[in-house]
Amino acid sequence: MTYVAQGAFAPASRIETAVRSMVVDRPTLVLDVDRVEFQYHQLKQGLGRAHIHYAVKANPTREIIERLVNIGSHFDAASRAEIELCLSQGADPADISFGNTVKKVGDIAFAHHAGVTLFAADAEEELDKIAAHAPGAEVYIRVIVENSQADWPLSRKFGCRGEKAIDLMAYATELGLKPVGLSFHVGSQTKRAEMWTGVLDAVAEIWHRAQAEGYALDLLNIGGGFPAFYGEAIDAPSTYAARVMELVGARFGDVPRVMAEPGRGLVAECGAIIAEVLLVSKKSDDDMHRWVYLDIGRFSGLAETEGEAIRYQIATPRDGDPVGPCILAGPSCDSADVLYEKRPMMLPVTLKSGDRAIIRNAGAYTSSYSSVGFNGFPPLDVVIL
Amino acid sequence: MTYVAQGAFAPASRIETAVRSMVVDRPTLVLDVDRVEFQYHQLKQGLGRAHIHYAVKANPTREIIERLVNIGSHFDAASRAEIELCLSQGADPADISFGNTVKKVGDIAFAHHAGVTLFAADAEEELDKIAAHAPGAEVYIRVIVENSQADWPLSRKFGCRGEKAIDLMAYATELGLKPVGLSFHVGSQTKRAEMWTGVLDAVAEIWHRAQAEGYALDLLNIGGGFPAFYGEAIDAPSTYAARVMELVGARFGDVPRVMAEPGRGLVAECGAIIAEVLLVSKKSDDDMHRWVYLDIGRFSGLAETEGEAIRYQIATPRDGDPVGPCILAGPSCDSADVLYEKRPMMLPVTLKSGDRAIIRNAGAYTSSYSSVGFNGFPPLDVVIL
Repeated sequence: MTYVAQGAFAPASRIETAVRSMVVDRPTLVLDVDRVEFQYHQLKQGLGRAHIHYAVKANPTREIIERLVNIGSHFDAASRAEIELCLSQGADPADISFGNTVKKVGDIAFAHHAGVTLFAADAEEELDKIAAHAPGAEVYIRVIVENSQADWPLSRKFGCRGEKAIDLMAYATELGLKPVGLSFHVGSQTKRAEMWTGVLDAVAEIWHRAQAEGYALDLLNIGGGFPAFYGEAIDAPSTYAARVMELVGARFGDVPRVMAEPGRGLVAECGAIIAEVLLVSKKSDDDMHRWVYLDIGRFSGLAETEGEAIRYQIATPRDGDPVGPCILAGPSCDSADVLYEKRPMMLPVTLKSGDRAIIRNAGAYTSSYSSVGFNGFPPLDVVIL
Repeated sequence: MTYVAQGAFAPASRIETAVRSMVVDRPTLVLDVDRVEFQYHQLKQGLGRAHIHYAVKANPTREIIERLVNIGSHFDAASRAEIELCLSQGADPADISFGNTVKKVGDIAFAHHAGVTLFAADAEEELDKIAAHAPGAEVYIRVIVENSQADWPLSRKFGCRGEKAIDLMAYATELGLKPVGLSFHVGSQTKRAEMWTGVLDAVAEIWHRAQAEGYALDLLNIGGGFPAFYGEAIDAPSTYAARVMELVGARFGDVPRVMAEPGRGLVAECGAIIAEVLLVSKKSDDDMHRWVYLDIGRFSGLAETEGEAIRYQIATPRDGDPVGPCILAGPSCDSADVLYEKRPMMLPVTLKSGDRAIIRNAGAYTSSYSSVGFNGFPPLDVVIL
């Protein structure tokens, strides 16, 4: 996954052409909404009859939501504010699922009154809250699946064990809710469709056990995990999605409702960040590595570099010159604000303060992660092409 | 450092009394500015003739800066916005140092025109930038010191090696700048004054070598590292600071200008966050641990729980009831948004959704770290007592 410097800013997509000439005074995310639409259709082609519920948290920019509403997307919301955003752009509340398993009571009541009918849960207490504030709602139970094949494996934070999932269906029924199905997550940035196999096997076992116990499940939420291109080869979205649906079909048969929640896989490649090199230095003259400090860091948009999990490609006007290893860091006076240190980046030896740095495929999990103003640096700006 | 549940909300400081009755609709940081003033005077008493340059990044709330200006504090700024903030509250530009070693060129020019005369640097290119945009300025060179005794040891991000520091003084002189001294950082939350010894020894060696080579240094910036109370015993601020100054005096003698940059040590204990329990659950019925989800997490104010580095004390109205181990997590649909998992927290077994959770001594590095709206959750609110 080592980055090899390419011709200056090549290949020239619409975004790359735009960012080359754009004048900005702070780190700026440039988004191409037409590209979002293109990516949506690619994924939809592979997913077939499954509904796409866009994971709004990946990028809640209004223009993206507006476009997705217009082309028929459904939505996965994490909070009241995300539901309000979708509604404000004309989304049908019946097309919005409230997918956070940890919801504020007031948010559940708001969603219910707004017409949202589908909620996620993984615990008794969450079902109690839903039953009290969205009586009669449909719920799907999120299950935990072990997985270590994703680039960013998920922790145990969400979901419950299989046997508990069935207990929760019983409990939901008791509370007057409708337990309609299961959800799971294979892990963010799961690079190949084949990596879904083990997880799908495990979920199918729970699914069929629940059916055997008399629960007429009709909804399978396969979550996200659809990858974006960060330098390593991935399949085309339509190919990838079609293969996942084949794997699903083989295990679950003809499920009436299948939903998928791409976030990163839908929007990451639709944006690039314009950043600037603030300083290139060495700690001592005989150091092998240079330190390269950008005007954007972990607390101003690049939160996903935590643990060096997501490794962005970076283009500079000096690409093509000889390269050398660099430790990449952000601008804040925070020693944790280092992007890549364990695996240094190869960047041009000619790079210097004032040079532009384009962070490619940065349309997901950047702008909304940005801090309100840590160290006095303003939040990441967003420009729509 | 295991938290032991105490009597409900005891001991009752002014902040704890206030947060008990305050009605809020989202996570809220409550600040007591009188307490900031008290803490300032405590530290000042120990630091003697050293100037306190408050590290604005720790908490840039306007009311804190205003009060500190009024009682004679100086300031350490990380960016143009922090300088503007200090100036807007009446700070004398001569009392503001621009301590970020990675500065935007435009910010240097702004600072220079505003009257700021003291800048940090640790690299040739940074000196070039300062010489071009703040000609004739005073600079201090930040050196790297190895240290593993702080609760949050700093990375190698800032500073240069000792031999290079002297080369940089020569280079600064060549550029028409005034190399006036050295700075360093012992590491955040250095709990005992004695832990400064090794670092001070190392810096003193560089200091005396520079003096021997003809640099008439007159400024020593001892940085931050002053601890806050998070449950483990620490010395009173005045005792701690006095002991550090003794250690400094023994190694550096009578330095004309000494500056200290407390951030956490000045404001952490002056604030508490009002949060709410959203969900208490188990992944399976035979789990030993409960999962407790709060309405605040790593991306909405508690960034310093990364790696479980800062371990906040949490008070609930059910303190006094029997306790059991809990994994603590934030509200977002992000699997990395887990606060304490490796070392679970002991919390009341009676804790449930809707209960208030008071996060004590959370006045530093919380509000400004908060994201602009990840997952649709609004940034941490701030209320001044």
